[in-house]
Amino acid sequence: MNQLDHRRASARVRILNPDGTPAANRPVQVDQVSHRFLFGCGAFDAVEMMKTQDAEKRAFLSERMDKWLALFNYGTLPFYWGRYEPVEGETAYPETMAAAKWLNEKGVRVKGHPLCWHTACAPWLMRFSNDEILSRQLARIHRDVTAYRGVIDMWDVINEVVIMPVFDKYDNAITRICQEKGRIRLVKEVFAAARESNPDAVLLINDFNTSSAYEILLEGLLEAGVPISAIGIQSHQHQGYWGLEKLNDVLSRYSRFNLPIHFTENTLISGEIMPAHIVDLNDWQVDEWPSTPEGEERQAREISEMYSVLFAHPLVEAITTWDFNDGCWLKAPSGFVHADNSIKPSYEALRRLIHETWETHENLATDGDGYLSFSGFKGDYILRVPQGSASLTLNGDISVSLRIG
Amino acid sequence: MNQLDHRRASARVRILNPDGTPAANRPVQVDQVSHRFLFGCGAFDAVEMMKTQDAEKRAFLSERMDKWLALFNYGTLPFYWGRYEPVEGETAYPETMAAAKWLNEKGVRVKGHPLCWHTACAPWLMRFSNDEILSRQLARIHRDVTAYRGVIDMWDVINEVVIMPVFDKYDNAITRICQEKGRIRLVKEVFAAARESNPDAVLLINDFNTSSAYEILLEGLLEAGVPISAIGIQSHQHQGYWGLEKLNDVLSRYSRFNLPIHFTENTLISGEIMPAHIVDLNDWQVDEWPSTPEGEERQAREISEMYSVLFAHPLVEAITTWDFNDGCWLKAPSGFVHADNSIKPSYEALRRLIHETWETHENLATDGDGYLSFSGFKGDYILRVPQGSASLTLNGDISVSLRIG
Repeated sequence: MNQLDHRRASARVRILNPDGTPAANRPVQVDQVSHRFLFGCGAFDAVEMMKTQDAEKRAFLSERMDKWLALFNYGTLPFYWGRYEPVEGETAYPETMAAAKWLNEKGVRVKGHPLCWHTACAPWLMRFSNDEILSRQLARIHRDVTAYRGVIDMWDVINEVVIMPVFDKYDNAITRICQEKGRIRLVKEVFAAARESNPDAVLLINDFNTSSAYEILLEGLLEAGVPISAIGIQSHQHQGYWGLEKLNDVLSRYSRFNLPIHFTENTLISGEIMPAHIVDLNDWQVDEWPSTPEGEERQAREISEMYSVLFAHPLVEAITTWDFNDGCWLKAPSGFVHADNSIKPSYEALRRLIHETWETHENLATDGDGYLSFSGFKGDYILRVPQGSASLTLNGDISVSLRIG
Repeated sequence: MNQLDHRRASARVRILNPDGTPAANRPVQVDQVSHRFLFGCGAFDAVEMMKTQDAEKRAFLSERMDKWLALFNYGTLPFYWGRYEPVEGETAYPETMAAAKWLNEKGVRVKGHPLCWHTACAPWLMRFSNDEILSRQLARIHRDVTAYRGVIDMWDVINEVVIMPVFDKYDNAITRICQEKGRIRLVKEVFAAARESNPDAVLLINDFNTSSAYEILLEGLLEAGVPISAIGIQSHQHQGYWGLEKLNDVLSRYSRFNLPIHFTENTLISGEIMPAHIVDLNDWQVDEWPSTPEGEERQAREISEMYSVLFAHPLVEAITTWDFNDGCWLKAPSGFVHADNSIKPSYEALRRLIHETWETHENLATDGDGYLSFSGFKGDYILRVPQGSASLTLNGDISVSLRIG
């Protein structure tokens, strides 16, 4: 367990009675109730749940989100400009804010994804000049980051910049301005807008390109003083699990920036693997993509291995699996649950890791002076003694007194 | 010829007699004697020629260099640190300076290649700490750029930065410092050293990687204020001619920086093509690599097409073919002449382009007031009238009076 030392901390706690005397030789149940590490998943269905007026659909999504909440403490909500604001000025604010607040109430930290991207961009932008597109892009960032401040304090500010100016599937407003301004100028501007609107937010750049091109982009951005809080790495593995060699190679190359690393969009599938010759995953259009029993065992194994490597790495702070359920993006069998919400082996495998292997639960006792010492995974705890309970946050070694009762 | 307008300029010249009266209705022979465009080639044999004490070898190299001089106005000389200074403090200065001056005297502009590179680096550097390696690298740049100032005013300052920190064929001093400093920091430092030592020099960055990674590196460097005079692009095509599509794609992607583009290391071969699966060309080790008659015709065609595209592009200022003769790097049949100095079809094809198609020679006459108008390719000219001759440089439209006789 040495390789997980950085995920743990020690507590020396003195438990006091209400009158201030030490609660000596008292049984204490120590239960970790949340993780500091961000175990995340796409939570787009929380928005759907807020939006739908169909009671059956709501019940179904609510059942799904209950299973979601039993695994995760971190969710990604959609801010694709073309869908968030399909008509200029008409946004999905009500249902998105409702979903974000609902998740917050359940103890879930929320990230907005993304503020600037060439894909799923608003088509109505294309009638403007490049200068007007850019000023609307910055205004959009100011508006949304400000509106959600305190509820969503983490943003994928810009997505897939490596390909952005050479993206040639279709004309779009963002590729246009990236071509004109250059990658670094555009990233600088959108990060500045996000930072101005929320000085405390965690601001990410995110890419599926893990080659030298992304590394060099990050070098250039950091040299240019862009306030990147964390490096986002996508890992959609529809074409097969990266395996330890590639995973360790990516970790080693992106570690040299000494910034937190977030695996922002992870996919491991439980069906047939997409052929290697497909370059843009979106080009793989199938009628159905079934999950298979062998595929489900493989997916569970690969998820366990990959999460274990990432959780052990000192710079990784978050892992987000992209689809919670099968049949979303590309119809892939990419979820922890099937489309009908029944759980898959990967769900159980990840639950065991997050809520058993990497979660601290112990029955201890105070000594004769009321002291209790324990070490555990970082996060929030409840300490229960016969006469009551108290909360404790363990993010580093601490020494505290708690008056309980 | 419209697409070559940017390579041409017009002159309105009044020819005067020695007494200042117009030389009316006089025949004038207009001969371009040099090009503004840099038609270049590796000129390493000029150094060999200066160094050898073997008269036969010298005669052979001299014959080779005569053929070289009949084509080119621009040459690259070697400054690989490990060869230029195999033992610390013992440099190839005498023969290199002699070669550079000899070329200058023949009207050839000289570039030094390279000042910083992980390959062919000096092994004796590896005993130093990274800080000491860097300070020696910068001192080397100061020393050499200063020593050759006025003779060599053009430098490949740094070579192959995209791969530099991840180069893993063997340990070397430059990869070490690039890993520690990062690409942008290192490029910044070596360019600053070169610029300090020769404020007027043309300073290039050079790479074989033409993917987005190099583009993004350039964005980052320009954003960081690195004084890059021109973008160097290698085009070793041992695995087959790029063709118009790739050539135009590269030109279009690298044009957006609006900096001069130099094709610094071009190779098109006249033998069998190297298999596509070879990633590092150096891994292709053969005993011999013959030139074939069909290959020689193909090479001549490809060189004609590629040079024509590049000469037509407004930002391209230089094209350097890497090997003048066959049997140099990788033993490839990559030259304009065979190993025995006999010329190949590619020699004749390029000679026709440079010295016929793209060179201006006209027999004209002054009008009744001594005026003569012509347009021609940019470069230096001699104007001959019966009573004498005069020189003229045509780099833009000009209007001058010349007193001849």
